[in-house]
Amino acid sequence: MRVTVLVRPKAGILDPQGAAVEGSLRKLGFPVQTARVGRVVDLELETSDPSEARTQVERMCSELLANPLIESVQIELESE
Amino acid sequence: MRVTVLVRPKAGILDPQGAAVEGSLRKLGFPVQTARVGRVVDLELETSDPSEARTQVERMCSELLANPLIESVQIELESE
Repeated sequence: MRVTVLVRPKAGILDPQGAAVEGSLRKLGFPVQTARVGRVVDLELETSDPSEARTQVERMCSELLANPLIESVQIELESE
Repeated sequence: MRVTVLVRPKAGILDPQGAAVEGSLRKLGFPVQTARVGRVVDLELETSDPSEARTQVERMCSELLANPLIESVQIELESE
């Protein structure tokens, strides 16, 4: 099954890429208050069981995909 | 209003970061078929009008946030 993981810098954590995007958008004339940049990871898993998928992805996040000290994670299972 | 933009490599486009994540997850023992990595951009706009927000963000995407040749864009307006 397909799973989408959104990994974002936590509030208060420095986000140079977001700051660069924010500055560039303002320079281009867009009325933006804030911009933050994170990662989206799309996974195709072999399992089709939603609760097993969530458990696997939570382990992937803590072992590889995200740094829990500075990043927050949002896991979205796609219903078929 | 808050807008979330998901920028992903199009199907068939080389994604070295996704390939690295895929290989690392497999080495860690996770049964992953594919992994693709893109960007999530969270914006706080001054406007509170949804259709104006969407128009602005579509222009931001074509002028700065994404490369339409190799990336697809998904725009999500957050309802208050």
